[in-house]
Amino acid sequence: MTAHNERAVVLVSGGLDSATVLAMATGQGYQCYALSIDYGQRHRLELDRARQVARTGGAVDHRVIKIDLAAFGGSALTDQAIEVPTTESNDIPITYVPARNTVFLSIALGWAEVLQARAIFIGANAVDYSGYPDCRPEYIEAFQQLANLATKAGIEGDVITVQAPLINMTKAEIISTGVRLGVDFGLTISCYNPEANGRVCGVCDSCRIRAAGFSDAGIEDPAIVS
Amino acid sequence: MTAHNERAVVLVSGGLDSATVLAMATGQGYQCYALSIDYGQRHRLELDRARQVARTGGAVDHRVIKIDLAAFGGSALTDQAIEVPTTESNDIPITYVPARNTVFLSIALGWAEVLQARAIFIGANAVDYSGYPDCRPEYIEAFQQLANLATKAGIEGDVITVQAPLINMTKAEIISTGVRLGVDFGLTISCYNPEANGRVCGVCDSCRIRAAGFSDAGIEDPAIVS
Repeated sequence: MTAHNERAVVLVSGGLDSATVLAMATGQGYQCYALSIDYGQRHRLELDRARQVARTGGAVDHRVIKIDLAAFGGSALTDQAIEVPTTESNDIPITYVPARNTVFLSIALGWAEVLQARAIFIGANAVDYSGYPDCRPEYIEAFQQLANLATKAGIEGDVITVQAPLINMTKAEIISTGVRLGVDFGLTISCYNPEANGRVCGVCDSCRIRAAGFSDAGIEDPAIVS
Repeated sequence: MTAHNERAVVLVSGGLDSATVLAMATGQGYQCYALSIDYGQRHRLELDRARQVARTGGAVDHRVIKIDLAAFGGSALTDQAIEVPTTESNDIPITYVPARNTVFLSIALGWAEVLQARAIFIGANAVDYSGYPDCRPEYIEAFQQLANLATKAGIEGDVITVQAPLINMTKAEIISTGVRLGVDFGLTISCYNPEANGRVCGVCDSCRIRAAGFSDAGIEDPAIVS
């Protein structure tokens, strides 16, 4: 399976999902352009980790684009006044950032157009998606449709694909896939509320999903310093 | 025709199209939240004008969100190394900013979600659209479909509309409509390449389309100081 050195824009967050996606895209032969969005998230560790993931993951370039989504408020991930919850809920959680994946994919689409890349990769996942509406397969399909109407590429008859290869994988499957592809999960961070030194809280949704994933995969999490 | 004080996010650029759209949305009874995007455009006059348009146009709030699309290059509107053309062409012009409307609408969608606004207004126009793919009706429809899959509102059964009321209007019709609704076009700026004092070049695509529009409408452009 090779992509003949075609270019792809890969959204890289510093978390384990997008690190795995980068390894998958690189493994398929894409020249990967890693893109991270600085959207006013509470902790900046994510972006440092994204840089390390991009570098070690074989990306040919990495850009960080800043956009101040925090200016709108409304999410515990960007709004300092809202506490990160530590208990499970069936509702869409307060850590949901409004329209986040739509904003991220739009920016990726802009770069893809400049690069003449025909593929955009995102680590969206419907299984462990915590109820985020923009992590569902029908959402990804709708964005792909939009992308082809929105761009010169589409007008000129080329096809842009939006690829979410993790969409139906469990966290354990993602971790096993990443390990097989040589991803260094020790560089990744999932916690919504880490300390400045990188120590994770262990109790937020994201920490709990990550811990369960490593446990189910029968793999020790290299990011946890014992 | 009243929207019963529903909230709407209205993209306001400082140009005459979006000033007209704001007047239309306000006229329909929407509580309008004006949104401007600082995307690294060559001239900052646009944003000053956007602020004035929002204030005089009855918006209840106005936000400017900064995103550095210039970091990708590829457009004469953001890339200082590319000259703004002064001759007509049938191709998609170099002033096209990659994925601009997709990025703008995505950000508007994020704010709409926080505000629980159910309408987004954009001044996209297919007649004088200079070949931009993201100004076509089918593009707007695709974004509306995406918006309803992307958001809590959509999941909860509400409907978000993306309204582009100028989409099939000529520039002359837009100008006549704006004048009828009391828009002060003297505040708006259309030039791709104005001087720092606001004097327009008169020869770029946008200046020529504006001049022809006022001429066809039989109205004098109040922004032109004689």
